[in-house]
Amino acid sequence: MTVSLSTLFVNGDRLNTHIDRLADVGQMPHGGIRRLAFSPEDCQARQLVKQWMEQAGMKVRVDAAGNLIGRYAGRKDKAPALATGSHIDTVPAGGRYDGVLGVLAGIEVVQVLHENDMRLDHPLEVIVFSDEESSMIGSRAIAGTVKNEAIYHPEQGTSIQACLAAVGGDWSRIMAARRSREDIAAFIELHVEQGSVLDGKGFEIGVVEGVVGMNRYAITITGVPNHAGTTPMDMRHDALVAAAQVTLAVQAIALEQPSRPVATVGSLNVSPNAANIVPGRVELTVDMRDLSQDCLDEMTYQLSRQLRAIAAKTRTEIDMTPILKVQPSPSAPGIKAIIEDVCDDLNLSYYHLPSRAGHDAMEMGRITDMGMIFVPSHAGISHSEDEYTSPEQCTRGANVLLQALLRLDRLYTI
Amino acid sequence: MTVSLSTLFVNGDRLNTHIDRLADVGQMPHGGIRRLAFSPEDCQARQLVKQWMEQAGMKVRVDAAGNLIGRYAGRKDKAPALATGSHIDTVPAGGRYDGVLGVLAGIEVVQVLHENDMRLDHPLEVIVFSDEESSMIGSRAIAGTVKNEAIYHPEQGTSIQACLAAVGGDWSRIMAARRSREDIAAFIELHVEQGSVLDGKGFEIGVVEGVVGMNRYAITITGVPNHAGTTPMDMRHDALVAAAQVTLAVQAIALEQPSRPVATVGSLNVSPNAANIVPGRVELTVDMRDLSQDCLDEMTYQLSRQLRAIAAKTRTEIDMTPILKVQPSPSAPGIKAIIEDVCDDLNLSYYHLPSRAGHDAMEMGRITDMGMIFVPSHAGISHSEDEYTSPEQCTRGANVLLQALLRLDRLYTI
Repeated sequence: MTVSLSTLFVNGDRLNTHIDRLADVGQMPHGGIRRLAFSPEDCQARQLVKQWMEQAGMKVRVDAAGNLIGRYAGRKDKAPALATGSHIDTVPAGGRYDGVLGVLAGIEVVQVLHENDMRLDHPLEVIVFSDEESSMIGSRAIAGTVKNEAIYHPEQGTSIQACLAAVGGDWSRIMAARRSREDIAAFIELHVEQGSVLDGKGFEIGVVEGVVGMNRYAITITGVPNHAGTTPMDMRHDALVAAAQVTLAVQAIALEQPSRPVATVGSLNVSPNAANIVPGRVELTVDMRDLSQDCLDEMTYQLSRQLRAIAAKTRTEIDMTPILKVQPSPSAPGIKAIIEDVCDDLNLSYYHLPSRAGHDAMEMGRITDMGMIFVPSHAGISHSEDEYTSPEQCTRGANVLLQALLRLDRLYTI
Repeated sequence: MTVSLSTLFVNGDRLNTHIDRLADVGQMPHGGIRRLAFSPEDCQARQLVKQWMEQAGMKVRVDAAGNLIGRYAGRKDKAPALATGSHIDTVPAGGRYDGVLGVLAGIEVVQVLHENDMRLDHPLEVIVFSDEESSMIGSRAIAGTVKNEAIYHPEQGTSIQACLAAVGGDWSRIMAARRSREDIAAFIELHVEQGSVLDGKGFEIGVVEGVVGMNRYAITITGVPNHAGTTPMDMRHDALVAAAQVTLAVQAIALEQPSRPVATVGSLNVSPNAANIVPGRVELTVDMRDLSQDCLDEMTYQLSRQLRAIAAKTRTEIDMTPILKVQPSPSAPGIKAIIEDVCDDLNLSYYHLPSRAGHDAMEMGRITDMGMIFVPSHAGISHSEDEYTSPEQCTRGANVLLQALLRLDRLYTI
């Protein structure tokens, strides 16, 4: 070895050049990148990424879920792998960094090891997960949480069979993509924050506490529609007054919890919805997210308690139906500690925060130790052509990923 | 004279038989009465009413606005008239009493005078106003408040010219329908309450304080649409949280006013209206009604003040645009006092209340002294086949109308 581990750094110019080159694939004339999963643009991007993987000394395969997996052999190659990665598909008019940074930084880490003739004890995998932006079928297949109903891919307007076949996957063998802790010792993902916390507070690195879980409910409030002129205030059963109280209760419930969860009434529909009629019915959604299942349970309890009180006070009927439940996926304490140590050693400021958006790491956390590194997103803008993380910030994140993987190699003894 | 004024009563059987017969005109097979203004059913009903007017000794004419006017000559026939009446058109699936009671009770009053060979000093008019349920063109023409833009009648899908012609009116001469205080000394209308106040509180007669005015506003709240997962609670500009505060403020503003006004957010639309997006924009309506212009002005002031506070607190922009303004039409104190006296003498319980629905009396109150008598509506149901006021309640209301007209004849000295 000619270079000591602790003085190893990624090549920031190369990393940012790769980011630029990938941004050309699916670039739309009027701005934004359209690289929908399984589309010709996605296939073209996968080809480019595959070349870069191979140049970095990795063996590349595609699993049954269409995940593109580059593997850099370890000194003890039968050992479980350390894995990193993210995705390269975008929303219909996405940005340059979401997903891409994690994939290309992972390849850059391997490239640096490769050009220094270095290997880790563990094999090191860089995974490009299939379709993060919609079905998350790639990471779900690896975690074994693919649902049978995922037989149609609405974004592409074609069957999931055809989608997977287009990228070299095979729906009939989807179970073969499943991995386990015996196979992947730890997974770490670098990603842009897609929120404004780090940018707003001026921190360089986010140490992700985990990916939040979600409880989503459909709430139906039934009052009595009535003449807005002739019905005195004290004889009303106003479903919208009840809905207003629910909306403010949802906000208050989130603000009262010490873990700073989020809770949102995002959709609300009034019936009959006429200026001169007291609203008779309101349907609304409540979306609650937090890292702690206990907090989600507590917020759900508080919500149902308050709904009963609001129903009684407004003389309406309120019904609450669960429509989505996603378990939180906490980061492994050992991986968080390593990211902190790396930041200290590299003299980078860091901040602990949950990821409130879904990521492939969420599913990976269901089968193995998981951690995430965030870098700032300018003004929190994401899923937009205006998404921006500076070249320096990208390089900084990749260096944290590199050093974290080197330390994970020592943490997970074989 | 063979009967003293104070012991005169209407013939309740005849009144209720007339109500039954008019309910056959436009009766729909599956319930509800469809007698839209200017329709063949309206024309058929007018014919029937005209016959009853003539049988009661009235001279009948149709004015330029299509108002059907029966006039029972007075002992001093050059004097200004006392007038009563209401309407016989219905909403698309209306009830048996709304409007009809006031018209048929007016005719019944004249019939009783006629069969007792009695005349008032004043001429007495019973007016069937054109199209109360939609344009109110009949009472507006008499009050001189017809607007030029009323050249198309949406309910009938035909021109107002053709509509008026169908019932003997003449749009080109609409100004000729205008009346004044020199011409009509006072107007009094008997109507079913179309609300549940009297029925709920168990009163027999409502002494109407006047017809409420209305201020209606369109309110637009502009926040910032954002990811419901990644946007912390304290960094949101949530338009729906602001709208919830507005909705509750509107309710509170009404409840704080001593005159018991009503205020309603009836329509509310959220954008983008998705469960996982913090609402960026809400459009809602505020409808405020009260008898007192001062109260309406005060509520408007309070609303605009609170909107500013809510905008600041929620970091949103709130815009308020007036979309409808109707001046209140208060009852004449002298007419209210007469109705009270009559109730006392007839041993009927009564309750003071505003009319929060529009009536022809509202427009008549703009040109002369106006009063209204309400009888209870079962459970407040109106504009429905389930609208119900018992025969006894109808007869009671007609007797109050009779006695009130007799006393008005003495109040307004010639």
